[in-house]
Amino acid sequence: MADRPRKLTESGVRAALDGLPGWSLENGKLHREYRFKDFVTAFGFMTRVALVAERMNHHPEWFNVWATVRVDLNTHDLGGVSSLDVELARAMEAFAKTTEQG
Amino acid sequence: MADRPRKLTESGVRAALDGLPGWSLENGKLHREYRFKDFVTAFGFMTRVALVAERMNHHPEWFNVWATVRVDLNTHDLGGVSSLDVELARAMEAFAKTTEQG
Repeated sequence: MADRPRKLTESGVRAALDGLPGWSLENGKLHREYRFKDFVTAFGFMTRVALVAERMNHHPEWFNVWATVRVDLNTHDLGGVSSLDVELARAMEAFAKTTEQG
Repeated sequence: MADRPRKLTESGVRAALDGLPGWSLENGKLHREYRFKDFVTAFGFMTRVALVAERMNHHPEWFNVWATVRVDLNTHDLGGVSSLDVELARAMEAFAKTTEQG
């Protein structure tokens, strides 16, 4: 939260993706699909992310059905992927690590 | 939860939709888009719905970005829209009533 968010260059996005296994760039957004063991785990993940997103004042675009959560992150105001998206993706990875299925 | 869920006929779906303003049938699913005032309200709505859905053991397919929540309901096991979908849609309406924007 310290740094002012900045739009990443293409190489900046690639570098960020190197540190985010499972993530890709789709339609100009950081994209990841998570599979959890059930709805409780999936929605529990979403709830943790929602609290962090609200604190960051930076929110995901996401889809859920049962144990699947699909996420797309970009920064509308900056017209692309920004450092905020990378920060939110990292928070998701930390939360998912203990609960995601194989 | 008392009745065994049953797949609705086309006329059954139409009758259900008459009692669910704002809902439509899209791609064989009950569909509704909610607009709330902000993310907290939207995700608060989702959290209430999630608890009820888990209790019903019947879960929505839904998408959220900021204050928007798009919902699609059907019953995979029955290959169509069922009484469970109508029950879940009604629960959503009750929760949204106090918080939805215009």
